Amino acid sequence: MSIDKLAAAHSAWLPPRALQAIKARRVAVHGAGRLVETVREEVGTTVTEDAELILRLSSERLGDEGFALYRRDGVTVVLADAPAGLLYGFFHVVRLGEAAFAGEWPVERHVPAMRRRMLDHWDNIDVHPVMGQVERGYSGGSIFWRDGVPRDLDRVRVYARLLAATGINAVAINNVNVHATEARLLTDRLGEVVAVAEVFRPYGIRVHLSVSFAAPVMLGGLPTADPLDEGVRGWWAQTTQRVYAAIPDFGGYVVKADSEGQPGPFGYGRSHADGANVLADALAPFGGVVHWRAFVYNHRQDWRDRSTDRARAAYDHFAPLDGKFRDNAILQVKHGPIDFQTREPVSPVIAAMPATSVAVELQVTQEYTGQQRHAVYLGPMWSEILGFRLTSEADVAGLARELVAVSNVGDDPFWTGHPLAQANLYAFGRLAWDPTLDPLSILDEWVDLALGPDVDRAALHAILDDSWRTYESYTAPLGVGFMVRPGHHYGPDVDGYEYTPWGTYHFADREGVGVDRTRATGTGFTGQYPQPWSDVYESLERCPDELLLFFHHVPYEHVLHSGSTVIQHIYDTHFAGAERAVEMRRLWERLAGQVDPELDARVRERLDEQVRSAAEWRDQINTYFHRKSGEPDAKGRQIY
Amino acid sequence: MSIDKLAAAHSAWLPPRALQAIKARRVAVHGAGRLVETVREEVGTTVTEDAELILRLSSERLGDEGFALYRRDGVTVVLADAPAGLLYGFFHVVRLGEAAFAGEWPVERHVPAMRRRMLDHWDNIDVHPVMGQVERGYSGGSIFWRDGVPRDLDRVRVYARLLAATGINAVAINNVNVHATEARLLTDRLGEVVAVAEVFRPYGIRVHLSVSFAAPVMLGGLPTADPLDEGVRGWWAQTTQRVYAAIPDFGGYVVKADSEGQPGPFGYGRSHADGANVLADALAPFGGVVHWRAFVYNHRQDWRDRSTDRARAAYDHFAPLDGKFRDNAILQVKHGPIDFQTREPVSPVIAAMPATSVAVELQVTQEYTGQQRHAVYLGPMWSEILGFRLTSEADVAGLARELVAVSNVGDDPFWTGHPLAQANLYAFGRLAWDPTLDPLSILDEWVDLALGPDVDRAALHAILDDSWRTYESYTAPLGVGFMVRPGHHYGPDVDGYEYTPWGTYHFADREGVGVDRTRATGTGFTGQYPQPWSDVYESLERCPDELLLFFHHVPYEHVLHSGSTVIQHIYDTHFAGAERAVEMRRLWERLAGQVDPELDARVRERLDEQVRSAAEWRDQINTYFHRKSGEPDAKGRQIY
Repeated sequence: MSIDKLAAAHSAWLPPRALQAIKARRVAVHGAGRLVETVREEVGTTVTEDAELILRLSSERLGDEGFALYRRDGVTVVLADAPAGLLYGFFHVVRLGEAAFAGEWPVERHVPAMRRRMLDHWDNIDVHPVMGQVERGYSGGSIFWRDGVPRDLDRVRVYARLLAATGINAVAINNVNVHATEARLLTDRLGEVVAVAEVFRPYGIRVHLSVSFAAPVMLGGLPTADPLDEGVRGWWAQTTQRVYAAIPDFGGYVVKADSEGQPGPFGYGRSHADGANVLADALAPFGGVVHWRAFVYNHRQDWRDRSTDRARAAYDHFAPLDGKFRDNAILQVKHGPIDFQTREPVSPVIAAMPATSVAVELQVTQEYTGQQRHAVYLGPMWSEILGFRLTSEADVAGLARELVAVSNVGDDPFWTGHPLAQANLYAFGRLAWDPTLDPLSILDEWVDLALGPDVDRAALHAILDDSWRTYESYTAPLGVGFMVRPGHHYGPDVDGYEYTPWGTYHFADREGVGVDRTRATGTGFTGQYPQPWSDVYESLERCPDELLLFFHHVPYEHVLHSGSTVIQHIYDTHFAGAERAVEMRRLWERLAGQVDPELDARVRERLDEQVRSAAEWRDQINTYFHRKSGEPDAKGRQIY
Repeated sequence: MSIDKLAAAHSAWLPPRALQAIKARRVAVHGAGRLVETVREEVGTTVTEDAELILRLSSERLGDEGFALYRRDGVTVVLADAPAGLLYGFFHVVRLGEAAFAGEWPVERHVPAMRRRMLDHWDNIDVHPVMGQVERGYSGGSIFWRDGVPRDLDRVRVYARLLAATGINAVAINNVNVHATEARLLTDRLGEVVAVAEVFRPYGIRVHLSVSFAAPVMLGGLPTADPLDEGVRGWWAQTTQRVYAAIPDFGGYVVKADSEGQPGPFGYGRSHADGANVLADALAPFGGVVHWRAFVYNHRQDWRDRSTDRARAAYDHFAPLDGKFRDNAILQVKHGPIDFQTREPVSPVIAAMPATSVAVELQVTQEYTGQQRHAVYLGPMWSEILGFRLTSEADVAGLARELVAVSNVGDDPFWTGHPLAQANLYAFGRLAWDPTLDPLSILDEWVDLALGPDVDRAALHAILDDSWRTYESYTAPLGVGFMVRPGHHYGPDVDGYEYTPWGTYHFADREGVGVDRTRATGTGFTGQYPQPWSDVYESLERCPDELLLFFHHVPYEHVLHSGSTVIQHIYDTHFAGAERAVEMRRLWERLAGQVDPELDARVRERLDEQVRSAAEWRDQINTYFHRKSGEPDAKGRQIY
């Protein structure tokens, strides 16, 4: 990327202004190590005496990444056991801004809740004929590759710095659907990974690689990829050794196996534990890990067969394998049982494998939540998921060892297509560090840093605080999911997936709608939950409204806890949601003149599209259910 | 293409066997001219005395292409005014085979009903990211180009010969959606057209080119493509002159303008007559013609707007322009008002423009009729269309000056993907020559020539005779159309186009289904027809069952002329149709050992897919309407 274009890229949450308070102070940085150097570079000139901010290594039992800070006698002090902690402490001071230099306060200790806070890029090297340069990417091209060749990495450097400021410490750089060219990153294109790793390294971020389970065949010329075959084990060991010779701090592998056409251990009659362990064994000598995705289901289901339930698949496949995975094999589980829908229950797999390291996977890229054309702040959704008390002992954040998310970043000048979608990337990093943070406070942080302290924050809150629920209100109702256009997944198509092999159905007929996943009369999925959730979801009376159609097939006249019937709820929420989109656009007008004109123009263009699209959702959903149920809208509004 | 692959290509309806009867005779060919030479090459050795077959030029007032033949005193004589007639006469003798040399018969005269019998290829030079090498092609790649470069034309030579044997005399070689690379065939890539024209020339086939209306801007660097601009007129004149300098018998241009995103005269506030005439004027000095497609409609329609009717569009746009087109501007009208659906009424435009040369366009490539995976013999459909008495004076064949069709040919070894789809290509040529031919007799001709006289013809008739109606029976019911998967158009998706901008709706709700196109209460489309059709289609009582839902929205309980209700008709036809597909597969078994094993394998594979797909259509359509209507199947069969 040229310097011109770099200059044109939005500075996100690290504009020069964000470092103003520090740059105005006398700062001392003590200690050695690459990440300490990074802090020195950030600070610029440092001093040895009379510092107003001191950052130094110490022994505080904060672990590799924690830091402590306090302010006493007009001096702010950041302490860390290790260089990475010092870097995170530095960015904490950046977030505090002038507040870091006011008053006095006792020692605060900050230690990350998750040992690994990771972003997965679904970037391709070659432009994929269907999925493009970035699969499910809505922010332009890849920052790593363009049309088959690596890009200048200047922008990756800026990205690494932005990520470090949120607390991210791991990045997988290529698509989990590993095509032929991308598979070669593991072998003869390893040099490209080396180059990227060098750019991430000064920011404490380790690079991971998505690999094909069939690599021994595709790349090694072996006759099999059977994980119990000695030749295969040897190939993975040797290949991994070569990777670490080039990248000593390489993070490890990410694998999507036996899923949506990707090869996997089932092809050899082996279990997924067998599959994951062969990679884990190859990585173990070097401290690497394999992220093994639990997203395994039958994507060639017959829609006529109501006994098969995609929601059950991950648990059915993986729960019996608990205890069989190596310590450095991380089972990466999507937060819900289906696929990143706007509303899903939490995946029961997260509670089902106490003897396995589980990573919970979120989706920052808005595949099913408006594709960065709709302003949807996902912080509240993730916060709700992470705080969900899945077992009597622990919430999801407590059960998970790691948090992973699919990145929403591309070569777009605003990084994320919709400028307001930056807040999602920022919030993911912050919640991965501390899942108990208030998502609306995180939003404040982002607004302050990215848009400055003088913008109309109340307007931004009014736009974004409820935006996830607004999006939910005008799309698929009551947790039923999908109803999106097949393929690209944007915009409404109520029956789009209804008669397909993908296992995503709503079963709407003249009488009612929803998927019966009860033990009593349905697929039995509710039985995968620990108590009380198993009984709560099983019960038509106790099931929360927002998940009703995920667990039950009910008549349109069924009365919700809210007092509304299902059909009237559908009409009401869709009229209200589309109206809210109009209101969001109106609210943005209040920021006119307060933000960069190009950013303003981009947001306006997206809000226009959101208003159009929300009306389209409203009308398609309402018309569909009106045609099917025959029920009039109690308020007599226009249904086409 | 290598000789090996050529040899591997199926010989279609001109295997060596087909010429056996002629080759066994003493043949005399008299006359001069390139096409007479072609006949000589076909015959091989010729004689001057004691001939049993004489082909010679004469003055019989048969026009440029007609021929006469008779048999007297043991000698078969073919006479023609011009070389092309002699060529067609020769292929007539090929079709007759041994019968051409038996008995005695008086003079028969054969003159083509249509002056131009044309195939349009929708081939691209570059592989289009969505539409591929051949748009709506189901027979492999293009025979003209591969991946951006021209192919060896050996196979085109074989193709030209096959077409000449059916009577085709014009071919447009590139896609009517003209992309950037393909636009250049008109200018700096003209050499590729020259090469193709040289291959078609010996078979009496003139080459046409699809061009972009924006060519003066795209290629000429002009600031406008306004058809009334003098610079634009001059550019077209000069460019066309250069084309004719290279290809003296060049056929002319094909234009899709102001349609589905293609540029056109509307962009300059001009009429389609203005647009067509600028090209016609450029072509006129050289005897060329422009085919101007009438396929103009609003493809960004709002589905909520029930007053707009895509079926009306061609008539609304073009009927007022009758008389305004140059003589060498041919208005190319799809046979139905929508888009090559399995069942549509005949387009009223065909009767609405008596002062305009109208070409009727058919679709040999099976975009909406099974994509050459389903065995669907289209001869009966086309025969029905051509024989439809649209006005009190004339049928469609009589109203049309030309017949044009989209080709189904690619580089597939069987030419057409499904080997039985060869019969469609063959039938199109034959019907364009003589629309009164019995399509089942044409099928006999093809079977004799392509599969040989010893195959189980009864089985083939049982498979193919009703195959179009069979396909109709398990797909969209009663003329309502579409219900296909958006984009690729294969397989069922009842609501796939229901809430889209494409203008193709069925309006099914709890009570009924169909599009009200009446004058009384609907879009008024019936008013575009001459009497009696305008009243017939307007009337719920008189409207033919098979078009009922094209013209009327009716309750599911509406009783058809057949005595069945609409809903029971839907169930019955779908069960029967899928069962017929199974029966077709069973019938094919009877041909085992009678045909080439590779052809046999290909047909079996396609029939398997047809059986699967027909069951899928049956179940999706039945389930959809069962869920919506709530009506049980009177026969209690399985509806999912």
